[in-house]
Amino acid sequence: MTSRYESGLTKLNELAPGAADSMMDTFRDVCPDLAKYTIEFPFGEVLQRDGLDFRTRELATIAALTAMGNCQPQLKGHISGALNIGCTQKEITEVILQMSVYAGFPAAINGMTAAKEVFELLDDHDAE
Amino acid sequence: MTSRYESGLTKLNELAPGAADSMMDTFRDVCPDLAKYTIEFPFGEVLQRDGLDFRTRELATIAALTAMGNCQPQLKGHISGALNIGCTQKEITEVILQMSVYAGFPAAINGMTAAKEVFELLDDHDAE
Amino acid sequence: MTSRYESGLTKLNELAPGAADSMMDTFRDVCPDLAKYTIEFPFGEVLQRDGLDFRTRELATIAALTAMGNCQPQLKGHISGALNIGCTQKEITEVILQMSVYAGFPAAINGMTAAKEVFELLDDHDAE
Amino acid sequence: MTSRYESGLTKLNELAPGAADSMMDTFRDVCPDLAKYTIEFPFGEVLQRDGLDFRTRELATIAALTAMGNCQPQLKGHISGALNIGCTQKEITEVILQMSVYAGFPAAINGMTAAKEVFELLDDHDAE
Amino acid sequence: MTSRYESGLTKLNELAPGAADSMMDTFRDVCPDLAKYTIEFPFGEVLQRDGLDFRTRELATIAALTAMGNCQPQLKGHISGALNIGCTQKEITEVILQMSVYAGFPAAINGMTAAKEVFELLDDHDAE
Amino acid sequence: MTSRYESGLTKLNELAPGAADSMMDTFRDVCPDLAKYTIEFPFGEVLQRDGLDFRTRELATIAALTAMGNCQPQLKGHISGALNIGCTQKEITEVILQMSVYAGFPAAINGMTAAKEVFELLDDHDAE
Repeated sequence: MTSRYESGLTKLNELAPGAADSMMDTFRDVCPDLAKYTIEFPFGEVLQRDGLDFRTRELATIAALTAMGNCQPQLKGHISGALNIGCTQKEITEVILQMSVYAGFPAAINGMTAAKEVFELLDDHDAE
Repeated sequence: MTSRYESGLTKLNELAPGAADSMMDTFRDVCPDLAKYTIEFPFGEVLQRDGLDFRTRELATIAALTAMGNCQPQLKGHISGALNIGCTQKEITEVILQMSVYAGFPAAINGMTAAKEVFELLDDHDAE
Repeated sequence: MTSRYESGLTKLNELAPGAADSMMDTFRDVCPDLAKYTIEFPFGEVLQRDGLDFRTRELATIAALTAMGNCQPQLKGHISGALNIGCTQKEITEVILQMSVYAGFPAAINGMTAAKEVFELLDDHDAE
Repeated sequence: MTSRYESGLTKLNELAPGAADSMMDTFRDVCPDLAKYTIEFPFGEVLQRDGLDFRTRELATIAALTAMGNCQPQLKGHISGALNIGCTQKEITEVILQMSVYAGFPAAINGMTAAKEVFELLDDHDAE
Repeated sequence: MTSRYESGLTKLNELAPGAADSMMDTFRDVCPDLAKYTIEFPFGEVLQRDGLDFRTRELATIAALTAMGNCQPQLKGHISGALNIGCTQKEITEVILQMSVYAGFPAAINGMTAAKEVFELLDDHDAE
Repeated sequence: MTSRYESGLTKLNELAPGAADSMMDTFRDVCPDLAKYTIEFPFGEVLQRDGLDFRTRELATIAALTAMGNCQPQLKGHISGALNIGCTQKEITEVILQMSVYAGFPAAINGMTAAKEVFELLDDHDAE
């Protein structure tokens, strides 16, 4: 195991506890290296970098995924992750709302629906 | 003139002095209301909102425009604007670099080329 | 309430009776202003404008949403809405079919599948 | 030559006189069949169809190309073509403006810039 | 029936036995010509062409659909089809993995999830 | 320097002699790590992999970039690179033509225009 893998694992677990195991498990039989690369490059290199704090990085990712509009599972994962590292629900919904300007209202509405589903799931967990 | 228009004008001038006049001028004969709406809705409403500071909003916009990859003029405008309101070159290049993960290397490379062009233009101005 | 909101509400109800309430309800706890802006800007301003009739506007929207291919809920809403304001099924399917040329066959096929689902749902309602 | 080719040629010449020759010429050495297919399928079949008039078809295409935002040459060609078959400048700018709602302001602004360039070029021709 | 239709039918049945009937059935009441065109143009013309073998054509299609990220049903159909005409699971997963570079990790992950679902479905069939 | 960097450099130079130096030079002052990552991850890892030959990988990349339609500089680079590693002009134009089916005619036409420009530039070089 490379040190990029190990530090990526730590970073990913900070954002989404259990996600690394789940991703390794999902892709074990089809393409385990996709999980390995995901841990090594985005989490082990890019998101480790100085010059921009992790919270702002997650808000930037939420902006991009909302605007692209074709990767709802990842958008939900990053909304949940952003909350885990200290972003507020308000910061997240403001970023998504702002995308109505740059990517149109359907993108913003679908992004906000993703946020609503994540928030409600977490509320249900908290209520248990 | 609505108060949304007036406060939008102030906001847009903060980001990009002269851009409102230039946009009004460009679209005067084809569709002046596109300029009017741009000032009223994005600048007069969305970017005025509480809950997320203007600098983070601009970084989120740079993330989205880099990821979408089909609006280079607006990307350059927001890179320049982000610098005007206090974002550092480093914050901007980190956001763009991060898009290699979410939208691919071509998007990040084209975004970084836009940043380079904006930075060099400003350096030239400073050197004059 | 602004007059833009009120006229937007009327316009949206013409297209999709009940949609405004449903949208307000959906986003009440996450971001009610997204629903408010949707009513005020698209419906209260853009779709109110002269120079292009409402039916042609809806066909243009169906063209764009089919081509973008990443906002099926909105595409279905506008297909249903277009029928409500007098577009024929034939006009709608012709616009979607035409997108095979500009956005590829997968986009057209997914758009047509959306149309089929909307048409069948309405047939079921009529049959009740 | 197929009858689809011949009727496509007539249709394309109606929209953009000279475009077929120019396209055949451009792709003669790389891939002449791309020009042939373009004439046969979009122009010889899809745009020949009943159920939607040619003017509305062109407005739908302008909507889609503005929203997609990655094919400016084709967008300009269809704006020019739409004028040739009787669409008004106002109808065209209204469709483009409307895309601010569905695809965001950058898409609408870049589409309107394309329209402005086409309109001005035609004004220059008329003035000669 | 045109000869393009007949040869397209043969080609499509080679890739996906039963798909033509299923598509004709799906669109019979909404727009049968979309099914007809799909058989005639992509399958009856483009995929019939010399100069590139069918297997490489399918891998190119899988690359494009993974990168676009907004047409999962077609992506799954082409993954299944690629296997039918002799592509290996390994070739398919390599193409999808490679899209992490050009379209980002979310596109690659969603593409790989589609591949996993297709592979597992086929394993289930084989186990029966 | 990592071994990923060194093997990536070799791979990139095989595809596009001089491109690594040019890219390092371009991004030296804005974000040298973008060039470093580009060499390490796409070229030092993904394109090094077994299971799919380099020529098919390049054709898959040309398919994806043509379909995405928003990264012409990279598309041209990969068309030129594909020729360097033994793809024929015919294979390249067939892949691009095929994208008319999956991403629409504008995408295919713009991709073919890129191919034409690359081919002509190389012809000019050969003629010198």
